[in-house]
Amino acid sequence: MASKGKKLKIMFLGGLDEIGKNMTAMEYGDDIIVIDSGVRFPEEEMLGIDLVIPDISYLVKNQHKVRGFVITHGHEDHIGAVPYVIRQVNAPIYGSNLALALIENKLKEHRITNAKLNRVKAGDKLQLGSFNIEFIHVNHSINDAFALAIHTRVGTIIHSGDFKVDFTPVHGTEPINLRKFGELGEKGVLALLMESTNVERPGYSLSEQKVGESFRNLFKDAKGRIIVATFSSNVDRIQQIVDAAVMLDRKVFFAGRSVETIYRIATELGVLKIPKGYAGNIDQINNHKDDKIVLVTTGSQGEPMSGLVRMANDEHQKVGIKQGDLVVLSASPIPGNEKGVSRVIDQLFRKGANVIYESLNEVHASGHACREELKLIHTLVQPKYFIPIHGEHRHLMRHAQLAESLGMPKENIFVAENGACIEMNRNFARLGNPIPTGAVLIDGLGVGDVGNVVLRDRQHLSQDGLVAVVMTLSKENRQLISGPDIISRGFVFVKESEELIENAKDVVRDVLAETSGQKMTDWSAIKMSIRTKLRNYFFDQTKRSPMILPIIIEI
Amino acid sequence: MASKGKKLKIMFLGGLDEIGKNMTAMEYGDDIIVIDSGVRFPEEEMLGIDLVIPDISYLVKNQHKVRGFVITHGHEDHIGAVPYVIRQVNAPIYGSNLALALIENKLKEHRITNAKLNRVKAGDKLQLGSFNIEFIHVNHSINDAFALAIHTRVGTIIHSGDFKVDFTPVHGTEPINLRKFGELGEKGVLALLMESTNVERPGYSLSEQKVGESFRNLFKDAKGRIIVATFSSNVDRIQQIVDAAVMLDRKVFFAGRSVETIYRIATELGVLKIPKGYAGNIDQINNHKDDKIVLVTTGSQGEPMSGLVRMANDEHQKVGIKQGDLVVLSASPIPGNEKGVSRVIDQLFRKGANVIYESLNEVHASGHACREELKLIHTLVQPKYFIPIHGEHRHLMRHAQLAESLGMPKENIFVAENGACIEMNRNFARLGNPIPTGAVLIDGLGVGDVGNVVLRDRQHLSQDGLVAVVMTLSKENRQLISGPDIISRGFVFVKESEELIENAKDVVRDVLAETSGQKMTDWSAIKMSIRTKLRNYFFDQTKRSPMILPIIIEI
Repeated sequence: MASKGKKLKIMFLGGLDEIGKNMTAMEYGDDIIVIDSGVRFPEEEMLGIDLVIPDISYLVKNQHKVRGFVITHGHEDHIGAVPYVIRQVNAPIYGSNLALALIENKLKEHRITNAKLNRVKAGDKLQLGSFNIEFIHVNHSINDAFALAIHTRVGTIIHSGDFKVDFTPVHGTEPINLRKFGELGEKGVLALLMESTNVERPGYSLSEQKVGESFRNLFKDAKGRIIVATFSSNVDRIQQIVDAAVMLDRKVFFAGRSVETIYRIATELGVLKIPKGYAGNIDQINNHKDDKIVLVTTGSQGEPMSGLVRMANDEHQKVGIKQGDLVVLSASPIPGNEKGVSRVIDQLFRKGANVIYESLNEVHASGHACREELKLIHTLVQPKYFIPIHGEHRHLMRHAQLAESLGMPKENIFVAENGACIEMNRNFARLGNPIPTGAVLIDGLGVGDVGNVVLRDRQHLSQDGLVAVVMTLSKENRQLISGPDIISRGFVFVKESEELIENAKDVVRDVLAETSGQKMTDWSAIKMSIRTKLRNYFFDQTKRSPMILPIIIEI
Repeated sequence: MASKGKKLKIMFLGGLDEIGKNMTAMEYGDDIIVIDSGVRFPEEEMLGIDLVIPDISYLVKNQHKVRGFVITHGHEDHIGAVPYVIRQVNAPIYGSNLALALIENKLKEHRITNAKLNRVKAGDKLQLGSFNIEFIHVNHSINDAFALAIHTRVGTIIHSGDFKVDFTPVHGTEPINLRKFGELGEKGVLALLMESTNVERPGYSLSEQKVGESFRNLFKDAKGRIIVATFSSNVDRIQQIVDAAVMLDRKVFFAGRSVETIYRIATELGVLKIPKGYAGNIDQINNHKDDKIVLVTTGSQGEPMSGLVRMANDEHQKVGIKQGDLVVLSASPIPGNEKGVSRVIDQLFRKGANVIYESLNEVHASGHACREELKLIHTLVQPKYFIPIHGEHRHLMRHAQLAESLGMPKENIFVAENGACIEMNRNFARLGNPIPTGAVLIDGLGVGDVGNVVLRDRQHLSQDGLVAVVMTLSKENRQLISGPDIISRGFVFVKESEELIENAKDVVRDVLAETSGQKMTDWSAIKMSIRTKLRNYFFDQTKRSPMILPIIIEI
């Protein structure tokens, strides 16, 4: 038998112990497939960082084996790293219409022209090396999302992607293909990898149709303009906004980079349908009556440069918020964005808008399965092994507990970390040797050139600023020729701190005087001494610790 | 009539458009009283700032009128600014036993010995100038909390303080004095100032007793140690932890600065009761069996230096987390702290603890009234005027809408901002001239010395770091004597960017060469030119914009 002795390896390059930068590789013999290639948004303490991508050195090292990237859906945490990754490992990419359109847009921005994009649709089967991959339709907060059934020589692996169970999705979208999960379960599934985002939420997620109902109810009472901020990739959501607008004979306008992109892409693909005459031109929005306008925009997360935030702050070129506007935030804040969202809501209220958001209205439905939905899939599939994915560590733990509560033996559940390699064949599964893993930080054009030292310096600078001490000394006798001068940034308000700064110069002069008798081969000891003395002096006077940069010039 | 022509002024020094730094002043004739004196915690972009207090210049200017500070309860956002404020306006302070004990502790840390502290209790009446103040018992997440009925010459004003309606508070604590609200309403209330924190939450807040029930249920199944992190000021909560521990014959230990303080204060005051033999000494905790231990600690907000976080990270001197520990986070994350809380939960799970937190268990009850409780108070009081307080702008707006929905005329509701002065007498109320207001930033020992320039510099430094360019030029002919040298911090990893730095030196040399022919009276034009050229160069090469600090020394 061909598979004798060979093991299937499931390796996590990202997506565990975090919500973001999803990337899972599966290896069997000489074949590797990679599922998703996402980014994560930087943590608060990653100052100045734009994006975080997975460390793919394992894939680079084994690139001759990589048969392809399989994309479950077009969200940033599943496709955002594609441009960075295929620069190093340019294997074919397989994804849905919408996911590929979003990837293409991204590649264009990165001026990458040699990517190999291949469209697949739900129901398709794809052979990549020894892997046979079946694409299964699921519901999610972006259209065209897949779960995967990966048939391998040692058994079938199901990867859930991101999903929810929506029995009543928006017209034109099918409910998740539950039958397929049942059929696969019936035939036997070796391992299930299932997302864990909403494992802390009891019950079922809200159906997307409910959100449409809320829109219709809210819109019909509105007398002025209607402005809706939402996640641009949720085409079903946008369709429901369009439908409600058309029902009330309002034109639909789009403002904000990502919604304008999705509007273009989704109408081209035919997944977003706007009846003739109802698509407005944003440049002419002010020629229309307020009660004929529905504006779809970005900024549901309170992002500083987004459409809604610029409107609220009177910084948008075309639209400002005014008394009588109805503003709907059709989203819930992603953890970490709560403050920004709350700020834009306040600002909108101040401008006289009536603001509707999630806390008291059903204007958003999560795209992720809640506990009862997770139980449903577990029960349909009943795999031999279970690996919770797509979650912070606590989500994975909770999901493991949930599986146990459904009767799965504890030893068949793997709560893994990024870098984990789980080896399995028909009869066993175990943790193998970990692979290299990590977070590669993107800052501007730099990929991975900002590390701990740089971040630590930024952190230090951000807290108490910087004090540079500049002096010129004679090479011969180490006498002061000029200075010490003190330049500070972000430390104290200089005009009110002249005495502090003058005294600090004395501290430096004292150090120079003390050390002038000593013979030194280099200046580092003097610099060190200046740094220590000044640090103590400033801390004593201000309880602050600015970064101290002694600059000594020898002439 | 004495009050003829005189108006009551209600002035907001803080607490509107924010949750924090609560401070309200009331003025009538020559008398001013001040309600609360709180801090706020800095916003994310206030880099390096420790605390924010209200601008009290109005009080300083009118300090001869200030008859006293009236404290509703001992939370930081109501008492935290006391040490800063009484240094400038040392009027008598009136508060409950517990609030004053916490203030005393604070004053000791600030080495302030001349404060005039006066204990009051629920039911007391206090005459301050023309104001007669009645202290009303309310439920809240700290014991000894008051609402205030302030009887003035123009009518009665009710200030709700922070409150909830708890029909079944912890044994020994009374339910909120609803009868008093009814009685005052019956006699006629001119204006109601009511907190708005939970106006977005439907229904009723959970009773504190329910939390006790959860503790008992969770504790009895625990086999190892039990560690509970909670807000230290919630003595009722701690009492319930103690009661559950004693029931199971476990000793109670306290670890973490603020819980140790509250343990000392509350047992001294007799509000926290621990049966003899059940108070453990934290230094000897490791001499006790795991199943005989309940440890109360800080860190329910994921604060980096708190007890629980240090335990989770193996940085605590006396306690580490181990397999089999039951850790309960008896709190919900304050907006902005979600990430930190989620991080400590993950870390605790990693150490093998079973972690219980709010999302799926009733281990925390909010201290603030939800919508039905707010409606109850509105209905009991039925004031002539209503001013929502203690909330972000959207909370105040929502609370105004709620009052309107109960039949209050829109024109009698004032949604105000910090600095607002509402003038009223028996027959009318209107917005008067605003008073000075603002956020005074505390950074180390500095009070108000960090302003926008300093913060902007910290922000800039935090994003892309700093590049200092140092060169020595001859006074006579402006020839380079030394340099240019480039020193960077927080910009790029220097060892990998030698070429970038060398080329940047060329950019600087070019600027010097270009300008060497020109006659300049000072160096600022050259510095400006260096800054611009380098900024463009670095942005072009890296898409980053470090702060550029040209330092030119003339010899």
